[in-house]
Amino acid sequence: MTVRPPTAADRGAVLDALTSCRAFSELEVEVAIGMFDEGLAGDYALLGVEAEGSLCGYACIGRASLTERSWYLYWICVHPAFHGRGVGQALQAAVEQLVLGSGGDKLVLETSARRQYGRSRRFYESAGFSVQGRLVDFYKRGEDCIIYCKALGALP
Amino acid sequence: MTVRPPTAADRGAVLDALTSCRAFSELEVEVAIGMFDEGLAGDYALLGVEAEGSLCGYACIGRASLTERSWYLYWICVHPAFHGRGVGQALQAAVEQLVLGSGGDKLVLETSARRQYGRSRRFYESAGFSVQGRLVDFYKRGEDCIIYCKALGALP
Repeated sequence: MTVRPPTAADRGAVLDALTSCRAFSELEVEVAIGMFDEGLAGDYALLGVEAEGSLCGYACIGRASLTERSWYLYWICVHPAFHGRGVGQALQAAVEQLVLGSGGDKLVLETSARRQYGRSRRFYESAGFSVQGRLVDFYKRGEDCIIYCKALGALP
Repeated sequence: MTVRPPTAADRGAVLDALTSCRAFSELEVEVAIGMFDEGLAGDYALLGVEAEGSLCGYACIGRASLTERSWYLYWICVHPAFHGRGVGQALQAAVEQLVLGSGGDKLVLETSARRQYGRSRRFYESAGFSVQGRLVDFYKRGEDCIIYCKALGALP
């Protein structure tokens, strides 16, 4: 398992992971792959994990504008064939290393409270994120937005 | 007092309001005026209030991506010479009318917990926004982000 920056050649694998994981709607996949393309162009930072010869997961992050040290974790996705092997943890560790190395010390993410996101929410919580806000009916009626934060570099 | 869409000719008045109100840092003014320009180009919706022959306040809003009916209130600013005359209330009413008329029913805004924003926070609270989240140290150490929401169209 190797952490490396994704390239344009990984686009198919990223799209495959996004659609196969069944967490995302068609529109969400469209937005996510659009941001992957913008990430390749330099608008966001991308990180990938390669295993068995192809990219099996990736993360897309970016600086939060108007902040000194906060970053957004926009997308993190692991192909379901690789779930349970620590790919998400490796990605998360790489994300934190990149943010800390760039002078950041806080990660913020927004996610849906809907049932299909249960696995993701458990992942964020075990990764040390905590809920800092909840926007009722944000995505649509009955689907709240949960805002998670993690302060980085607070280890002893 | 007239509510109308701002035009490129109002750019100077908007910049004057942003700098004169002393709520915003230089960087914030830069970002706000950049978004005003992008709003003129169609990326955001802009609303203005004209009084005594010039624009004395404006708001910049936009749809929240991946949501059905949520909008962000990015910027709302009234020139201090016109504070206390109901310009903010007129802008806020126009914002809500625009959002409702576009099929939206929720407004979200993020603002700083710093002292200079006290007037703004009181305005949001009297306009019916309530705090839904707080991101500690988001802007910088000691400067939290407060997330406000308002559900629209819930009037009897």
